[in-house]
Amino acid sequence: MDKQYSEDSRQFVPETMSNMRFAVLVLGHGEMGRSMEHLLSGRHALTFWERNLEDGSENIPLEQAAAQKDFVIFALPALPHAELAERIQAHISDHCICLSIAKGMDEQGRTPAAVLGGVLGPAGRFGMIYGPMIAEEVRAGHPGFAELGTTQSDVYERTRELFAGAPLYLRHNTDVIGVSWAVILKNVYVPLLGAAEEAGLGDNARGFLATAALEEMARIIESRGGRRETAYSLAGLGDLVTTATSTGSHHRQVGRDLVHCAPGDTCGTGMNVHSEGIHSLNMVQRFGLLDLESFPLLRLVRDIVNEPRDVAAKFRPFLDASFADAASRNTRD
Amino acid sequence: MDKQYSEDSRQFVPETMSNMRFAVLVLGHGEMGRSMEHLLSGRHALTFWERNLEDGSENIPLEQAAAQKDFVIFALPALPHAELAERIQAHISDHCICLSIAKGMDEQGRTPAAVLGGVLGPAGRFGMIYGPMIAEEVRAGHPGFAELGTTQSDVYERTRELFAGAPLYLRHNTDVIGVSWAVILKNVYVPLLGAAEEAGLGDNARGFLATAALEEMARIIESRGGRRETAYSLAGLGDLVTTATSTGSHHRQVGRDLVHCAPGDTCGTGMNVHSEGIHSLNMVQRFGLLDLESFPLLRLVRDIVNEPRDVAAKFRPFLDASFADAASRNTRD
Repeated sequence: MDKQYSEDSRQFVPETMSNMRFAVLVLGHGEMGRSMEHLLSGRHALTFWERNLEDGSENIPLEQAAAQKDFVIFALPALPHAELAERIQAHISDHCICLSIAKGMDEQGRTPAAVLGGVLGPAGRFGMIYGPMIAEEVRAGHPGFAELGTTQSDVYERTRELFAGAPLYLRHNTDVIGVSWAVILKNVYVPLLGAAEEAGLGDNARGFLATAALEEMARIIESRGGRRETAYSLAGLGDLVTTATSTGSHHRQVGRDLVHCAPGDTCGTGMNVHSEGIHSLNMVQRFGLLDLESFPLLRLVRDIVNEPRDVAAKFRPFLDASFADAASRNTRD
Repeated sequence: MDKQYSEDSRQFVPETMSNMRFAVLVLGHGEMGRSMEHLLSGRHALTFWERNLEDGSENIPLEQAAAQKDFVIFALPALPHAELAERIQAHISDHCICLSIAKGMDEQGRTPAAVLGGVLGPAGRFGMIYGPMIAEEVRAGHPGFAELGTTQSDVYERTRELFAGAPLYLRHNTDVIGVSWAVILKNVYVPLLGAAEEAGLGDNARGFLATAALEEMARIIESRGGRRETAYSLAGLGDLVTTATSTGSHHRQVGRDLVHCAPGDTCGTGMNVHSEGIHSLNMVQRFGLLDLESFPLLRLVRDIVNEPRDVAAKFRPFLDASFADAASRNTRD
């Protein structure tokens, strides 16, 4: 089995050539960190920094480890991004590139890109790797696909050299705001698709909900200053399709579980802990980042999470409103 | 089981109100015709016209049956659209609306919309119903979702009245060219996603291929005079997601079967008969409708159909070219 996957992985490696050997610090050695290890080990010098969640102890001194690195990869959730970026900021070299694969928001409602941009400053070299690259799949040797969100083309070129020889297909996207919101929102919408599936709405509804989610995502990205079309990139559409239809997807399962929440259960609360998407939606509400009145699909997720009962019935008013709007929109033309 | 589905279907019926009872002629009583029967019977007076495929005999005189109808629904493949439209053209009343749900091309490489537009003339009242509405799902009581492609808003309003009370959510799309090419192309791309799945490319590849297919679809629609964004409507994105991920999907299975084609088998030829998508691709080539040099994903489908061996390996040059292009595109910026 492993051998077969390994052959597959040799088959699906981008043509990018590079003999560069980089010094890389990977922050976090959980599921995401091990994916990075799988993609990079053997070609680069990898150092892993991690923190014991129970006693807070760290395996190596972070500042010292960051000092001589070509890359620092944030392979952990959004939450500790600011603290860690601030700690390493004065220690990393000018040419060092910070990469993040975190798809959530921190406790202040900031995207990882906003955090890195804020800490590293206008000349800061950083990029976001967002797209369909499910950890289990990558570790099994299947190719991953992502937009590298960065305004700097040399950061893109350098990052391609980093992943040369690895089964990860990267393309450049200068809309950092767009890719950031795309992956965050995809984790909000995927549980909704999972819930619809479990509630028995059928396969046609999956296609409709994907369409509606991406239309709303495009409007949200635009309202945040990004480009509408980024919703339809690998970071939005690509990741949404993969996550919504992968049998092993955690985010899909979150939605399926909601349907079986009994009255009185704390499913909604419990989900907050385990789902980046639901956490992001909470942050959106707490900090008033988006006007939920304008975004009915986000409201539907909120309603299902807050009151996970009669999930199928909750879709009905959303459907009616969606298609009533479409009718009146055209009547007004 | 039936009872439960029936309750589901009452739950998912658009709010549209109408007491209109229409006289409807349905052309064809196969899978598509029976879907229409399921959606419309009980509220309207339905007449079914059908032709015995073995001896060519027709159950009722077509011209006479079309004469007093409010709607004629073409619930059969693209192939006989021109012949049937020409036969009824002089007999239908001025207010009669022709609707088609056919998602292929005829033997002259024409879309059903082009055929209806050509035969009925500039004042012709017609609309195309395209979106996720898998026949088995609709007959099982699950809701369907579609764009009604028509330039005339009164055709849209009238068609909504026709389907009032049925679990079919319709919205208006004036880009008739766009929705026509969207559904045709989705039947070309879905077998490719099925083949990738069966060839073991993994879940990440599904998200990437959906993204790439829709990007190419948007460019093709634009090159044919439609609107790019129609690729991301229910007729494109919505139908593609549903069909590519539905376990019962015929088009998905076509692609999966290709992977197991042994050398010397006539799988490619055989597929022509059974797959609207492969037929459309053949028409595109025969009539030079698109420059395949500009559309690498269509070329990939062609190559896999023509030579269904080592399917997984065939994806590799496509992937390399896709991401090499992305790099050079950005370098040129």
